[in-house]
Amino acid sequence: MKLTVKELAERLNCPFEGDGTVLITGVASLEKAKSGDLVFLAKPKSRELLEKTGASAAILPPGEKFDRIPVLRADNTHLAFVRATEIFNRPYRPEPGIHPAALVSGSAKIGPQVSIGAFCVVGDDVEIGESAVIFPLVTIYPRVKIGARTVVHSNTSLREGVRIGSRVIIHNGVVIGADGFGYLRSDDGTHIKIPQVGTVVIEDDVEIGANTTIDRAALGETIVRKGTKIDDLVMVAHNVEIGENAILVAQVGIAGSSKVGRSTILSGQVGVADHVDVGDNVIIAAKSGVTKNIPSGSFISGSPHLDIRDWRKFWALAPQLYDIVKDFKKLKARFEELEKSLKK
Amino acid sequence: MKLTVKELAERLNCPFEGDGTVLITGVASLEKAKSGDLVFLAKPKSRELLEKTGASAAILPPGEKFDRIPVLRADNTHLAFVRATEIFNRPYRPEPGIHPAALVSGSAKIGPQVSIGAFCVVGDDVEIGESAVIFPLVTIYPRVKIGARTVVHSNTSLREGVRIGSRVIIHNGVVIGADGFGYLRSDDGTHIKIPQVGTVVIEDDVEIGANTTIDRAALGETIVRKGTKIDDLVMVAHNVEIGENAILVAQVGIAGSSKVGRSTILSGQVGVADHVDVGDNVIIAAKSGVTKNIPSGSFISGSPHLDIRDWRKFWALAPQLYDIVKDFKKLKARFEELEKSLKK
Amino acid sequence: MKLTVKELAERLNCPFEGDGTVLITGVASLEKAKSGDLVFLAKPKSRELLEKTGASAAILPPGEKFDRIPVLRADNTHLAFVRATEIFNRPYRPEPGIHPAALVSGSAKIGPQVSIGAFCVVGDDVEIGESAVIFPLVTIYPRVKIGARTVVHSNTSLREGVRIGSRVIIHNGVVIGADGFGYLRSDDGTHIKIPQVGTVVIEDDVEIGANTTIDRAALGETIVRKGTKIDDLVMVAHNVEIGENAILVAQVGIAGSSKVGRSTILSGQVGVADHVDVGDNVIIAAKSGVTKNIPSGSFISGSPHLDIRDWRKFWALAPQLYDIVKDFKKLKARFEELEKSLKK
Repeated sequence: MKLTVKELAERLNCPFEGDGTVLITGVASLEKAKSGDLVFLAKPKSRELLEKTGASAAILPPGEKFDRIPVLRADNTHLAFVRATEIFNRPYRPEPGIHPAALVSGSAKIGPQVSIGAFCVVGDDVEIGESAVIFPLVTIYPRVKIGARTVVHSNTSLREGVRIGSRVIIHNGVVIGADGFGYLRSDDGTHIKIPQVGTVVIEDDVEIGANTTIDRAALGETIVRKGTKIDDLVMVAHNVEIGENAILVAQVGIAGSSKVGRSTILSGQVGVADHVDVGDNVIIAAKSGVTKNIPSGSFISGSPHLDIRDWRKFWALAPQLYDIVKDFKKLKARFEELEKSLKK
Repeated sequence: MKLTVKELAERLNCPFEGDGTVLITGVASLEKAKSGDLVFLAKPKSRELLEKTGASAAILPPGEKFDRIPVLRADNTHLAFVRATEIFNRPYRPEPGIHPAALVSGSAKIGPQVSIGAFCVVGDDVEIGESAVIFPLVTIYPRVKIGARTVVHSNTSLREGVRIGSRVIIHNGVVIGADGFGYLRSDDGTHIKIPQVGTVVIEDDVEIGANTTIDRAALGETIVRKGTKIDDLVMVAHNVEIGENAILVAQVGIAGSSKVGRSTILSGQVGVADHVDVGDNVIIAAKSGVTKNIPSGSFISGSPHLDIRDWRKFWALAPQLYDIVKDFKKLKARFEELEKSLKK
Repeated sequence: MKLTVKELAERLNCPFEGDGTVLITGVASLEKAKSGDLVFLAKPKSRELLEKTGASAAILPPGEKFDRIPVLRADNTHLAFVRATEIFNRPYRPEPGIHPAALVSGSAKIGPQVSIGAFCVVGDDVEIGESAVIFPLVTIYPRVKIGARTVVHSNTSLREGVRIGSRVIIHNGVVIGADGFGYLRSDDGTHIKIPQVGTVVIEDDVEIGANTTIDRAALGETIVRKGTKIDDLVMVAHNVEIGENAILVAQVGIAGSSKVGRSTILSGQVGVADHVDVGDNVIIAAKSGVTKNIPSGSFISGSPHLDIRDWRKFWALAPQLYDIVKDFKKLKARFEELEKSLKK
């Protein structure tokens, strides 16, 4: 793919300055850009990198003066750069068609332009919507439904009856619909399995990172709502419900029946206990352990969790505490001496 | 599956009250139940949900008055409901037989009624007990032994020589028997691999959640004893030994050569350091980090861990600490002023 | 494999004492050794186990007196034992050759003596170096490069264009090169995917544990340098760079664009925030959360992290703090009483 600065500016719907005939062949970071690359200025403090960049054109915000190379103007430079990246870098997708080495049940309904890779197993009564891409070595148990244009990467398992929306991206090694973790303890100490007979619903436009696991409900549904993005190695337990446009960073774990509100951000390695209700637009700092309901709009940190301001105050003290306690003990001794001397 | 209340009561060995001819076709939660569903009352506080349920019959404890719909009586309502769930919802299992697209070594010993799915690879000298179910796309390295009625879900890897008991359930993406993490550091800073030549033993009735990893021993065996239940994304390192009927919740990690006693519960995201001995019937709260031996019967929390009472006392103080320290500094100033005034 | 003590001593280049004709057939731990086994003494405190061992020969340090069984002498007994273990226990490796049930693109370049297992998918323009071993059910997307003698275990996915060095060991279920986790938030609250068009570079002699995920860079490369060892269920995010001979213990997570220096050790369940620079030869204790740059040579612990000495001082106080605060409140009351009495 090669575009002149002028052609690229038209496709991005951006004004440009400088030589519109310069050829652009790709995108890069300011540091690594070479001739032919397009770059963008994310933050004013990267200005120095811009001065030295080897790029052939740059996307800059209005008012940022620069004319060594052609400049495209955008209010949101990062967004314009994302669109440019999409022009130059199509993600790898195999051709449509069912690979002859895939095993697809005769009762499965496969939409037009679907790609199913080698050594996939597609069970009875599965439905796959148009233009979906199933990479090789994916196991799709019976009765799974997959929406249009959804992409499922290799070595993923979709268990019986789970429902996946449209335009979902599922990375490699993901497991959706394995049994939830539920047992009754019997008197002899053994654990009796509670059958996990519910399912999982993944709504449209969700993305799920590599080796993440989302368990099926005991009864009913585990739900991940529209637009939510989940990173790698995340664990979503049975009967959890995650609102729209939430963010679950890597290695987050959410225990059974908890709810996470819309646009809430769970940072890396956060844990949420079972039967907890986390509101909308909450921010939970990395490694926090959530054990109580969290009102919408909160920003919390820690395990146990505190409001972020209390958490910061507490931990600002922590390294001084040893000396403060020493100081206290000295004060106590001085006080007792004083008391004694006064009693005399 | 359809049963009358009378037939169901007989199969569950429960007395019933009301119209025994009402047809039951499934189970559901109190909130979601529709006509034909059976529900149960777990806790007195769910009574309100029971009043409004759309279910056709309910399992209630003796003495709980209710006659709007037929009632089955059980001391342990949840257990009776589990048994009912098993009647109405058989878990999905493929038919017995070796799929023609599976590759099974000629030296493997496959018991009667075993199911081996498409694109499985079963190595030399593997033994699989009767009625075991191996879902598609499972890799079984040479010399693995799998007991009767064990179920192994898709995309799982069982490494050379590991031994799995009977009635074990292994969910998708599990790895049993990958090399333990052991190195000697050489003088030039490189790490020399310590060969991991031991194995893994999973005893009967264990369940292992999706994408969990259990490493082979350096020498000898990593052992998970009978009846232990392991959730998703758990990491069990080399030479660990886990007692009977233990519970390892999601994302727990146990480092090399540590022991976990019988009926001990490790809550979500707990970490156990290497060469640590955790006793029987211990409860470790979520996110705790265990660095020392823990006596049987303990209940601990935190990282570093404290007895649960000390942990609660400490964290009850934490949000007040900033003000307490301010208070202390004021007191110190007042004291010094007093001291000064007395010296005059 | 059977060797006399004399033959073994020659192969290990160690002097020996006692009967050189004794036959050695394997290695074992002091506790579990039987006739025919070789053992070693790791620490003086294991001397008691040595006295009772059932082994047929032992590797001991110079000066450690023992003559009940033949003794091989080595300054580094563990290293000599590792070499002996390698003699008696060759790791399982399938025969060279491309399995007829593997699908290898016609444009892939496969070196001599390579083994590719059943149901592997090897994409266009992949290159695999000599004597590499690809176990069954591995997905290798187009343009991946794999060095000589590298081993890739089953159910692993190597995404488009990632580059793996020589003598790398990749355990089962690993995902290398899935998309990094990057989004722009739009005004309506939805998340716009930032295309992840970079790649991953794994240098020579790296080992990667089961179900670990290493994401591709947004632009440029995620890099794991030569000799670094990574345990199971670790998450390395996009654009991270890990120095040579680092150690990442199980369930570590490193967020985007962070750097980890050479020979640095991240203990189990450590989290590193994004855009953080961790120096060389740093030790980070288990479960720590790293949010700031860490100078080389540091030893830190906690979340938030403190220097290990401060962390120890703080936590030594923690269980006493409740009583200290009570004591403080008493002192304050006594002080106020004193003050009052003086004012009279």
